[in-house]
Amino acid sequence: MIDTEPHHISPGSVIDLHDISTRENGGLKKKEGKKAIHKLSKRLVTLQELLYAQKKNSLLVIFQAMDAGGKDSTTRRVFSPLDPSGVQVKSFKSPTQREQLQDFLWRIHHHAPRKGFISIFNRSQYEDVVAARVRKLQPPAIWQGRFEHINAFEQLLTSDGTVVLKFFLHISKGYQKERLQRRLDRPDKHWKFAPSDLKDREHWDDYMQAYSEAFERCSTNAAPWYVVPAERRWYRDLIVLQTIVNALESLQMSYPKADFDASAIEII
Amino acid sequence: MIDTEPHHISPGSVIDLHDISTRENGGLKKKEGKKAIHKLSKRLVTLQELLYAQKKNSLLVIFQAMDAGGKDSTTRRVFSPLDPSGVQVKSFKSPTQREQLQDFLWRIHHHAPRKGFISIFNRSQYEDVVAARVRKLQPPAIWQGRFEHINAFEQLLTSDGTVVLKFFLHISKGYQKERLQRRLDRPDKHWKFAPSDLKDREHWDDYMQAYSEAFERCSTNAAPWYVVPAERRWYRDLIVLQTIVNALESLQMSYPKADFDASAIEII
Repeated sequence: MIDTEPHHISPGSVIDLHDISTRENGGLKKKEGKKAIHKLSKRLVTLQELLYAQKKNSLLVIFQAMDAGGKDSTTRRVFSPLDPSGVQVKSFKSPTQREQLQDFLWRIHHHAPRKGFISIFNRSQYEDVVAARVRKLQPPAIWQGRFEHINAFEQLLTSDGTVVLKFFLHISKGYQKERLQRRLDRPDKHWKFAPSDLKDREHWDDYMQAYSEAFERCSTNAAPWYVVPAERRWYRDLIVLQTIVNALESLQMSYPKADFDASAIEII
Repeated sequence: MIDTEPHHISPGSVIDLHDISTRENGGLKKKEGKKAIHKLSKRLVTLQELLYAQKKNSLLVIFQAMDAGGKDSTTRRVFSPLDPSGVQVKSFKSPTQREQLQDFLWRIHHHAPRKGFISIFNRSQYEDVVAARVRKLQPPAIWQGRFEHINAFEQLLTSDGTVVLKFFLHISKGYQKERLQRRLDRPDKHWKFAPSDLKDREHWDDYMQAYSEAFERCSTNAAPWYVVPAERRWYRDLIVLQTIVNALESLQMSYPKADFDASAIEII
C-alpha cells in the first residue's frame, strides 16, 4: 500500500505550493506503480458496487489544477474502469447569467452525488475563491467570506454520508509550457487549445498563492485536500486511486441482507 | 466487420419476437467475437473524442429489455472504456408524482444529450407504450397515440444532429428464469432481486406482443430499432458496438481546424 499521507494537507498547516514537488515518485519505479494501479482499479470496481448496493454513502471527488494539469486524463484513467451508470462527471465553467443570480454554491449543490453514486467535479466551488480572486471578479470582502461557506457546505454533505476528497494536480510552470506547446504542435490537438488559456499563466504566482490559502482554509477532517505531484501521470493516478480506495474501505461496506426469504421463492 | 443488418427492424416490417432468436452467434466463435470487440472498443474511444472535439453531433443509445436481459451489463461493457466525462447514463424508473403532471416525454427530453456527448437510457419512453400498456396503467386511447409522439420527438432529436440508436436485448423466458435463480442463490446478489420482479414475468407474452408493436411502429429511418440476441453476452456486446461504430463512422467526423495561427503563438 502506498502512503498517501505525505500529500495530504493537514488541517491547520501553512503551505506554499512553490515548495511542494510536482515530479515526485514516492521512491517507486513506474512498473511497480502500474502494478499497484491495476490492483487498486479492480478493488475500486468492487467498492463501487458495494456503494451502489448499500445506498448509504456517496463519493464526491473534486479536481482542481492549472490548465494542462491533467484533470481530464486523471478522470479518464481513474474512473473509466467503473460502471458508467454510477458515475457522473460535472465540469464547471464560468457561471451563467442565470447562475449569477444565486449564491455561489447553488449550482454546485445541485450536482452533489445521491446515495450509491459517485460525482466527479472538474473544477468546483474552489474557482470561486481562486480564479474569482486572481481575476478580481469579486472584491476581497466577498471571496474571503466564502471559505467558511465552503467548509459548512462540505460538512453538510459529509454529515449525510458523502465521502468528500479534493485533489490539486500540481504541475510546474515549465511543465505547463511543454504541455501547451504540444497542443500547438499537433493539429489534432488544436481543438484543446484557446489562446485565452495563456492569460491565467501570466498570473501563475497569484494562482499558487490563492490555491495555497484555499487549501490552508478548507482542508478539514471532513473533507481533506491532497496536493498530488502530477508530472508523472502514473504516480498521480496511483495517489488519487489509493486515497479513494482508502476512504471507501474505511466505510466497511457489505452487501445488504435480503428482506425476503430467498429459499421460499419459486420462479415459475 | 460484422453484419448488423439481420438484427435491424426495417421500417414497415411486421414482427413477432417469439420468432426471433435469443441465442444466435452470427456464425462466429467467441474468440473471434472478443477480438472484434477489442478492436471496435478502441475505435469507439477515438470516435467519442471526435464527437466531443467537433461538438456538431451527439449520440443517444436506448436499451430496453425484460428483467435480467442485461441492460446494466451491456452499458458497463460497451461504454466503460470511454471517457466518463462525455457519457451520461440515465435510468428511468416509474414516473414520480411531479413527472406525472407533465406529458410523458417531458422528463425524457430533459436528458437528451448535448452536442459532443453520449447519453444512454436504461429504459426510456418505450416503457410508456409497453409497461403502461401491459400493466393497464393507461387506457388504449392514450398509449396508442404515443407512437406518433415518440416518432416526432425522435425526429426532432435527429434533425438537430443526435444519432439515435435503440436496442432491445432479447432473452427467452427460460433464460430469465436461470438468471433470476442465480440472483436468489447468491447472497451477494440478493440486493439485485425484488420479489415484485416476478410480476412482469407472468405477463411475458403480453410484453412480447407490446414490444413487437412498438418496434413495428417506431423503427424509423431516423431512429432504428435493433433486436439483439442477448443470451451470449459477447455476441450482444459485439452487435451493439458494431452498430454504434457504424453510425458514428457515417458522420465522417474530423478534428476541427484551429481559428488561430498556431505557429504565431509563443508561450512565455
